[in-house]
Amino acid sequence: MDNHHIDHDREDRIGFQEVVYGESKSVEDLSHILEDFISNGKNVLVTKLQKNKATVFLKKYENAMYDEPSGIFILKPLKELIKKDEVAIISAGTSDIHVSNEVFYTLKYMGVNATKVNDVGVAGIHRLMDKLEILRSFKILIVIAGFEGALPTVIGGLLSQPIIAVPTDIGYGVARGGHVALNAMLSSCANGISVVNINNGYGAAMSAIRILNLINK
Amino acid sequence: MDNHHIDHDREDRIGFQEVVYGESKSVEDLSHILEDFISNGKNVLVTKLQKNKATVFLKKYENAMYDEPSGIFILKPLKELIKKDEVAIISAGTSDIHVSNEVFYTLKYMGVNATKVNDVGVAGIHRLMDKLEILRSFKILIVIAGFEGALPTVIGGLLSQPIIAVPTDIGYGVARGGHVALNAMLSSCANGISVVNINNGYGAAMSAIRILNLINK
Amino acid sequence: MDNHHIDHDREDRIGFQEVVYGESKSVEDLSHILEDFISNGKNVLVTKLQKNKATVFLKKYENAMYDEPSGIFILKPLKELIKKDEVAIISAGTSDIHVSNEVFYTLKYMGVNATKVNDVGVAGIHRLMDKLEILRSFKILIVIAGFEGALPTVIGGLLSQPIIAVPTDIGYGVARGGHVALNAMLSSCANGISVVNINNGYGAAMSAIRILNLINK
Amino acid sequence: MDNHHIDHDREDRIGFQEVVYGESKSVEDLSHILEDFISNGKNVLVTKLQKNKATVFLKKYENAMYDEPSGIFILKPLKELIKKDEVAIISAGTSDIHVSNEVFYTLKYMGVNATKVNDVGVAGIHRLMDKLEILRSFKILIVIAGFEGALPTVIGGLLSQPIIAVPTDIGYGVARGGHVALNAMLSSCANGISVVNINNGYGAAMSAIRILNLINK
Amino acid sequence: MDNHHIDHDREDRIGFQEVVYGESKSVEDLSHILEDFISNGKNVLVTKLQKNKATVFLKKYENAMYDEPSGIFILKPLKELIKKDEVAIISAGTSDIHVSNEVFYTLKYMGVNATKVNDVGVAGIHRLMDKLEILRSFKILIVIAGFEGALPTVIGGLLSQPIIAVPTDIGYGVARGGHVALNAMLSSCANGISVVNINNGYGAAMSAIRILNLINK
Amino acid sequence: MDNHHIDHDREDRIGFQEVVYGESKSVEDLSHILEDFISNGKNVLVTKLQKNKATVFLKKYENAMYDEPSGIFILKPLKELIKKDEVAIISAGTSDIHVSNEVFYTLKYMGVNATKVNDVGVAGIHRLMDKLEILRSFKILIVIAGFEGALPTVIGGLLSQPIIAVPTDIGYGVARGGHVALNAMLSSCANGISVVNINNGYGAAMSAIRILNLINK
Amino acid sequence: MDNHHIDHDREDRIGFQEVVYGESKSVEDLSHILEDFISNGKNVLVTKLQKNKATVFLKKYENAMYDEPSGIFILKPLKELIKKDEVAIISAGTSDIHVSNEVFYTLKYMGVNATKVNDVGVAGIHRLMDKLEILRSFKILIVIAGFEGALPTVIGGLLSQPIIAVPTDIGYGVARGGHVALNAMLSSCANGISVVNINNGYGAAMSAIRILNLINK
Amino acid sequence: MDNHHIDHDREDRIGFQEVVYGESKSVEDLSHILEDFISNGKNVLVTKLQKNKATVFLKKYENAMYDEPSGIFILKPLKELIKKDEVAIISAGTSDIHVSNEVFYTLKYMGVNATKVNDVGVAGIHRLMDKLEILRSFKILIVIAGFEGALPTVIGGLLSQPIIAVPTDIGYGVARGGHVALNAMLSSCANGISVVNINNGYGAAMSAIRILNLINK
Repeated sequence: MDNHHIDHDREDRIGFQEVVYGESKSVEDLSHILEDFISNGKNVLVTKLQKNKATVFLKKYENAMYDEPSGIFILKPLKELIKKDEVAIISAGTSDIHVSNEVFYTLKYMGVNATKVNDVGVAGIHRLMDKLEILRSFKILIVIAGFEGALPTVIGGLLSQPIIAVPTDIGYGVARGGHVALNAMLSSCANGISVVNINNGYGAAMSAIRILNLINK
Repeated sequence: MDNHHIDHDREDRIGFQEVVYGESKSVEDLSHILEDFISNGKNVLVTKLQKNKATVFLKKYENAMYDEPSGIFILKPLKELIKKDEVAIISAGTSDIHVSNEVFYTLKYMGVNATKVNDVGVAGIHRLMDKLEILRSFKILIVIAGFEGALPTVIGGLLSQPIIAVPTDIGYGVARGGHVALNAMLSSCANGISVVNINNGYGAAMSAIRILNLINK
Repeated sequence: MDNHHIDHDREDRIGFQEVVYGESKSVEDLSHILEDFISNGKNVLVTKLQKNKATVFLKKYENAMYDEPSGIFILKPLKELIKKDEVAIISAGTSDIHVSNEVFYTLKYMGVNATKVNDVGVAGIHRLMDKLEILRSFKILIVIAGFEGALPTVIGGLLSQPIIAVPTDIGYGVARGGHVALNAMLSSCANGISVVNINNGYGAAMSAIRILNLINK
Repeated sequence: MDNHHIDHDREDRIGFQEVVYGESKSVEDLSHILEDFISNGKNVLVTKLQKNKATVFLKKYENAMYDEPSGIFILKPLKELIKKDEVAIISAGTSDIHVSNEVFYTLKYMGVNATKVNDVGVAGIHRLMDKLEILRSFKILIVIAGFEGALPTVIGGLLSQPIIAVPTDIGYGVARGGHVALNAMLSSCANGISVVNINNGYGAAMSAIRILNLINK
Repeated sequence: MDNHHIDHDREDRIGFQEVVYGESKSVEDLSHILEDFISNGKNVLVTKLQKNKATVFLKKYENAMYDEPSGIFILKPLKELIKKDEVAIISAGTSDIHVSNEVFYTLKYMGVNATKVNDVGVAGIHRLMDKLEILRSFKILIVIAGFEGALPTVIGGLLSQPIIAVPTDIGYGVARGGHVALNAMLSSCANGISVVNINNGYGAAMSAIRILNLINK
Repeated sequence: MDNHHIDHDREDRIGFQEVVYGESKSVEDLSHILEDFISNGKNVLVTKLQKNKATVFLKKYENAMYDEPSGIFILKPLKELIKKDEVAIISAGTSDIHVSNEVFYTLKYMGVNATKVNDVGVAGIHRLMDKLEILRSFKILIVIAGFEGALPTVIGGLLSQPIIAVPTDIGYGVARGGHVALNAMLSSCANGISVVNINNGYGAAMSAIRILNLINK
Repeated sequence: MDNHHIDHDREDRIGFQEVVYGESKSVEDLSHILEDFISNGKNVLVTKLQKNKATVFLKKYENAMYDEPSGIFILKPLKELIKKDEVAIISAGTSDIHVSNEVFYTLKYMGVNATKVNDVGVAGIHRLMDKLEILRSFKILIVIAGFEGALPTVIGGLLSQPIIAVPTDIGYGVARGGHVALNAMLSSCANGISVVNINNGYGAAMSAIRILNLINK
Repeated sequence: MDNHHIDHDREDRIGFQEVVYGESKSVEDLSHILEDFISNGKNVLVTKLQKNKATVFLKKYENAMYDEPSGIFILKPLKELIKKDEVAIISAGTSDIHVSNEVFYTLKYMGVNATKVNDVGVAGIHRLMDKLEILRSFKILIVIAGFEGALPTVIGGLLSQPIIAVPTDIGYGVARGGHVALNAMLSSCANGISVVNINNGYGAAMSAIRILNLINK
């Protein structure tokens, strides 16, 4: 009754294929979907997959990879990347690793190698200043922050590349859930920062891919 | 006591100069700021300037332009643009003109000519389908919508360019103020759409400029 | 002290009998209620019943059925339906199965056979276009969506039947809990879409029953 | 630059033509839109039009009608209706007249005569009880309420027709803006009530039209 | 370091003694508090005590009583009540038992016997009508409801006694947590209904006690 | 089309007659309503009537009274009150006069004389302490506060009468609109305080009337 | 009936006298209050007084001063200050002048001279860096910001003095009203920043006074 | 890939070193961070560390201390404090111990001894009055409250020291999560109270340290 009809033409249409949102699907439904991709000879990216469900599929598909902090699951091994680094994934530290890894592995799945730049939080701004030259060398900056979400604003006043801001759900009290970081990024007085949903590392990566496709065309 | 020190080095630093947010400043404070720009031989863009305040400055500076729906004020005449169209400003109709004009004039101030594509709302999707080929010819799509904010999602499933979504405050009941459109855009199940604040046409334009600078480098 | 007095006249009064909301009742209280229905010779529909509580009743009443994703529990076997399909249950995929099943089984309990139409999400609009003729053959369309909730808007611009929109709680970040989908449906720029509470598949089904009763009178 | 391309095929496609949302459009933009309808030989319904803007058009188009409480503007005189009453518009009193009139005139524009049933608020429930037989004679009930929004719930427990609930923005304190009435209607423990946006009398009328089209087919 | 100094004079001051909020206190802290009451020769009422913590104290104090749905814990046996019924606790059914029991046992602890009147929900209003005469015999009506919270409004239009409305957290979607019921009660168009916090059965009972003290003085 | 049918039996039914909410009704509609009351030989209380509308009726009905801060309008002169003071209306100062007057005049209309006790704000608690004996002499305490709404909590810990708390919309920043005061009153750690809607002086007075009716029966 | 009893002992009690919140009081009520202060030989500070009301009092009291952006009104001339600068009032520019002036004049009224440091917004962080040495010379930093409210966080990571953060209502879209700035300041990942209500320049100044009293004791 | 670079210069820069937010970091990431501090010869404070993660580190580092209610973890033993008490930590009782302990241990880690003053809730204000002289002897008052958060307001009207208010998440219904207490503190009509995030005992302690550093310089 519930056959999943994958949008296999999407890649032809807009350059990237359908991805599977894992969080709210049962193991049974995911199994049908994965088999459908396999029978079409395709690789597949599953996002926000919980560990207990991933364990089932890691046993079944021995080449698959799974990143626990982000919940990213990739069915087949990825090819060696030869492209040079074009994207920096900037965050204040390890608390946001569930999001920075989602960006990292989504980009990798799309064939883009990225570099993580950590420990550049706004509460210790000199560390950010020390890395300005390195940051200037990337084409796109994906900036991740929870709590008060000020990091994209500070970077936006210092650097001129496209900046994709990703709020995370890290924080407590008024910051719980990430809405403060999201709203602070949307309200930024720095110029031309664009924003994705809370914890949407996948979306930030795809937004970068849209830009890179434009450059590399 | 309240001297305004304009950030005249910003252009050297990140490629675009400081802009003036007009909505919450008094005529007196704005006068000082405009004179400071003039004395530095610069043009200036003022955003969200109310009509009663604009009238004062239009009398004083005869070459200035003012767009009433958006509240954009530009001090000096802009040079003729020779760049070809690279940005499409897409919206459902004239209700969102205060935002589409803010995008249009900000881009023009930055030296970029843009094309408006109206009347492509999701409630009559065949009109959007008819324009897909035209839309495919632009490098960047800025998609504006109020109410339920579904337009960027539909376009995101059909086209592969960078998409910057701008929610507007048009709507009533739960949609009043634009939060529904904003949240719908952030929650979009289409891939890689990035979003700016409600009515932030200026920010969308600057986000496009960051991408265009990257391409045209 | 807490005797439950079932509204056994409701069926005479408004054409459908009382239903039991299972989520917040204890096993003990539910047992009394079920026995009361049984002693009145009636069947009963329990909604949103958690699995651990359903297990108790499945052991006790061997003819009962239980659908785990939706939590629908029906005490007695339903008669074979001879009515033709009049309702389509439209959704983007398996993530919303907890709601589409609640619609499906409630309709079935009320004697109405429905057809599920899946994988017609707005991010791949051509798949929806391919199914327009099929959708046109139904009397009532129940459209289910989480995340940005754009599907009813798109369908509302293409089809003329009564449309009942059901937001679901599927999504993360700003979409968590389903409020974005709900508000987007309420704000739809498409004409004449009516909406029920988040995850309220039962209510959507009953709303359809009210319309079908009117037609079939 | 801003030509409005009206969706003149919509009537063929889904049985009713495009309507104009008047609140956020300028007189200039509305003028272009009205002329476009006129040049296509069509009548047009404008919703939520402010009085100062309506005055301009009432002078220009002498056959036009305008209802001030609701802001409904109709360009050409409507034909005499011969259809019998099929819709009841139920509300507690004159505070909600801006919404009940929007329902009434939209239905009239669509060729449907409706009857208003006022003064049936929940705080004096015997008056509602007195009118139950009258209410039973209508095919569809549109129930309007502000404040705590309880009226659709009470009616839903007493009558079996399709019920479309319309929350209004009437109320103060926590009720200001209509969100309490909206949420109470969505949360109703009565069966099968569907809901539209706050003050969306137009949407409720169109939802009724979708059902009536189905019956009268 | 954390000695608890109980407000043992409160009874003299305002007629009722300090009560212990159990939900957020540890077993260790509660133990000290209970012993302090015991050493002062007093009984004590603990509210919203979780089952795992209650179990510890039920073992230790063999005369104590504990009501699991409400989490009410009372240290010593209550005296036989000879007062006649003065308070009715009205609710729609067993879903709100966690709150109706909190009202019931708090009143009992304060020496007041109350009567529960269930199954009088607004979706089946005739059952409420049948009980009007019984309800008229009570001095105070405590009306409990979750979901859309309409019951106090309907009762307020029919009866003239003091009405204390208690919203509960029962409901899903927009109703989850009880804010809709609370706001609907606050917005009631019925006259002179007063409201307490969501699930605050204890507060409703104490509000009744303040009134009864006034009458019985 | 919009005849207003006043609930003239309400007084027999629940002891107090229908009152008119003036804020959202037009002068025309209010005129019909007032005439209806007059033709039935009744007095009438209109709440929250704006000054511009009141002026019309003060000209027409020369015996009418109108209190501008609260917007209370009473058609006919009230009889001399002989009842002794039973209700204290307590507030921190003149900022809340719009609400304290609504309580005062509603009580007066109902035949109850009340005493205002001002300048007892929590920021200067010794002034409250000085008035405790006076406050103890009243049967019912209506406590009004905006901003952080702490006054009912402090009074609730000191006095044992029924306390009806009324939040007001006075405050700025997070306190704007009165939601903080409302929520603080609902969350009060003092016992047995009941609450009405923001600015609902009318409701607080009617709640007191329900209690007084009980006492004086 | 509404005599205002000023808390004239407050100064003895806690070191600073009562202040008058002007926004929600009528001219008549304010007149009584001012005369009460005058008859007690005291000066008085009125906050958030609207211009039309201030004009009345400026005519009546010729020595009074009024600052229009902040709405601060001071009845008598202030003595010449001899204290050296101890407080810096830091903000990004003239948009927040309504708040920075409220801080400035409240401090002046309390006998403290402060220095405004403007144009140090986070979007141009080098200008802030240039002023670090100057900022280090103040005892207390009051940091004012609207929009995303990031300035206190950046300053908090660079300087070690007490920092009082004041969010302002400047911003649009999600930032309208100042809640984003407030929440970002509360969520700051910088250490030991304390926050006052939106636009509460008065409160920030008084918080500084409490600290200065401690130092200068 | 994820090396943590601790900001070891922060102590030189602003007088206190980096602290580790434990709640959202994995055991593995925390292990790297702790070892980094150890290899730099430093002690470290971890906040909001869950018990299951603390257990791992308590086994590994035998001199470490862990406070379960607050989740404070300190790697090395603290030196004996010789400073006299300068800070009072005031709260209503043991429900807020998770926050009062976070304040206490953070201050201790910073070398400041503090005194807890419990059981001074606003519902029994005489107990607070009894302790006024003791409270007057402290330099700084940190006032902690959940529910309606009125305690700082009452204390602010009685005492003149710096007051840092800390809302807690203790409460239910509208108070759940601590937003009511937070907003009530921000809206306080008492003078000069500054506020930190919900449950942010750490931030309150650091705010006190900034003031103490100023005094003791």
